[in-house]
Amino acid sequence: MYEQLEDAIQRLIYLKPEEKLLLRQLFVPKYLEKGDYFLRAGEPCQHVAFIQQGLLRYYLLGDGEEFTYSFAKEHNFVSDYESLLSSQPSKKSIQALESCSLLVTTYENFQLIYQQFEEGERLGRLLLETVFVKIIQQLTSLYQDSPEERYKFFLEHFSEIQQRIPQYYVASYVGVKPQSLSRIRRRLGI
Amino acid sequence: MYEQLEDAIQRLIYLKPEEKLLLRQLFVPKYLEKGDYFLRAGEPCQHVAFIQQGLLRYYLLGDGEEFTYSFAKEHNFVSDYESLLSSQPSKKSIQALESCSLLVTTYENFQLIYQQFEEGERLGRLLLETVFVKIIQQLTSLYQDSPEERYKFFLEHFSEIQQRIPQYYVASYVGVKPQSLSRIRRRLGI
Repeated sequence: MYEQLEDAIQRLIYLKPEEKLLLRQLFVPKYLEKGDYFLRAGEPCQHVAFIQQGLLRYYLLGDGEEFTYSFAKEHNFVSDYESLLSSQPSKKSIQALESCSLLVTTYENFQLIYQQFEEGERLGRLLLETVFVKIIQQLTSLYQDSPEERYKFFLEHFSEIQQRIPQYYVASYVGVKPQSLSRIRRRLGI
Repeated sequence: MYEQLEDAIQRLIYLKPEEKLLLRQLFVPKYLEKGDYFLRAGEPCQHVAFIQQGLLRYYLLGDGEEFTYSFAKEHNFVSDYESLLSSQPSKKSIQALESCSLLVTTYENFQLIYQQFEEGERLGRLLLETVFVKIIQQLTSLYQDSPEERYKFFLEHFSEIQQRIPQYYVASYVGVKPQSLSRIRRRLGI
């Protein structure tokens, strides 16, 4: 059960045998049904999860409308780092788009990894870099790019999972109504 | 000249005497006149700077309009981490609002710090956490908060420097025209 988590971490740092054992104590399994929430806006985010199987979406509420701005699939980590790091209530929600099998740990445990693993701080830096670039790219793109450019960006960055995401969430990610997304898809011959 | 940089780093990690010496070799002084650019959109960002004195703004261009989304003052680090980490051309510009005295290093040198300083990786993680929370808060707030709420956020987070920032950049940060900012200020009795 923990092999995928170990592999994901070992792509970034070296793990000693005793660190692998500790990992198994720090992460516990959790299952989400399709539609369940990993995090609801208004709650402080206190957990980090590794996705063994499944798909989740991140969204914000603005003017009563949902705005889906990212997706996370198996072998990704999922959390609201803004809330985690600031200890403020989350402004985001994270919801399962499929039934999900997660390995979950608390932020306190995650900090134990930073402190006690030989390359724990490096792991923290590298994980944060990945999330940072992904989220900033999407948020800045909403100010700068046309819907068509954003749809191409979506196809490029989520090529493996695009078939698993309902079109109205893709439209939300692109920042248009579903009808406009259909027009963009026709224009691109998709 | 390097004391402020050392102090800023020592608020996050312990620096050995030999690490302080290396810092002095890795960072070189650079001066910007008011209006000069630290980074122009379209160039890849390859540097990180520590601001000894002065004030800069970060902005994006969207639909031909400038959108100022952050400020950095003395004792802050300044860089476009998205471009730095992804090696892609920057989508942002970083411009001096006052004459600035900087200490500049390359990203390669910054990675030397990660690798060679005893707590270098920890420094990287902590610096990234600070920048991450600040930028995500501002970008998400543009989807969720009213201009009045964003102006209050600005007053709270940039209280020490608000007098140094021209009102049209404050208006851009808040996401409104300067006339609307004046109305918000009157409503708040400022």
